[in-house]
Amino acid sequence: MGFFSKDIKSMDDLFVHTLRDIYYAEKQILKNLPKMIEKATNPELKKGFETHLAETEGHVARVEEVFRMHGVEAKAVTCPAIDGIIKEADEIAGEVDDSSVLDAALLAAAQAVEHYEITRYGTLIAWAKELGRSDCASVLQQNLDEEKATDKKLTNLAESRVNLQAAE
Amino acid sequence: MGFFSKDIKSMDDLFVHTLRDIYYAEKQILKNLPKMIEKATNPELKKGFETHLAETEGHVARVEEVFRMHGVEAKAVTCPAIDGIIKEADEIAGEVDDSSVLDAALLAAAQAVEHYEITRYGTLIAWAKELGRSDCASVLQQNLDEEKATDKKLTNLAESRVNLQAAE
Repeated sequence: MGFFSKDIKSMDDLFVHTLRDIYYAEKQILKNLPKMIEKATNPELKKGFETHLAETEGHVARVEEVFRMHGVEAKAVTCPAIDGIIKEADEIAGEVDDSSVLDAALLAAAQAVEHYEITRYGTLIAWAKELGRSDCASVLQQNLDEEKATDKKLTNLAESRVNLQAAE
Repeated sequence: MGFFSKDIKSMDDLFVHTLRDIYYAEKQILKNLPKMIEKATNPELKKGFETHLAETEGHVARVEEVFRMHGVEAKAVTCPAIDGIIKEADEIAGEVDDSSVLDAALLAAAQAVEHYEITRYGTLIAWAKELGRSDCASVLQQNLDEEKATDKKLTNLAESRVNLQAAE
């Protein structure tokens, strides 16, 4: 988030600010997912990232729709949280040589990203309802549902690694 | 995370590195929660943060126990993700004047922290099992269960705000 004065005076301001935060986050994810796709070697993981890239384009469009519905400018504000999560993912990926270990690290990084989005959409939905904007809440809910489904798929992949190891 | 060369060669290295990452994160939370307690005005939120502060001390102790069980040094490595999440929380808190809006922002920030911890413990548990260390997994599971319970409490608080507004 990137305001420099006490610009958030109401729940509506906080809602708009956080919408701009997730807008920035989604765009950063859009920019960084292709690098993760390139690095991943497990075909299922690669495919999962590709599917999520397409979904993320839809998430950006839905957030823009909420900006329009709420009558405010679609603008991104820097989000140190997603920047930190992505920085950590980059650092760890740079430290791993073995492809199977790298896949595990990428999977974990993707889950950290998903969880950040899950918490932010959960918050935005609660605030939209508080503001009497259940119309905005239901658009945001679609993004939340897809993020949760992606996280679930990643968890299944992580667990299938465990079963694979156990079977060896 | 803070390695500067390709030091992560195995799943065991990745597990230890991520354990050091969550160790750093828990310690940062321990350092920052008192500030959040001070800023919160809603008594339930304040109390929730206080309870979580006590729990966080227990989480640090459990992570140290896992270091011991695994025979590695209890050492923290800088975690840009939690630093980013905390930076964002600080920034947003500095931008809000109204106490009710500030409570909402603090609650959302706390949920972002919880979700980061939830994803990291989930990952660590999967990797501990993959490494055949179900003993470490079960210690980490206790932290995960408490983080999830805290997140649930925060969600309930967020929803009670919505109901409160709706009733006005």
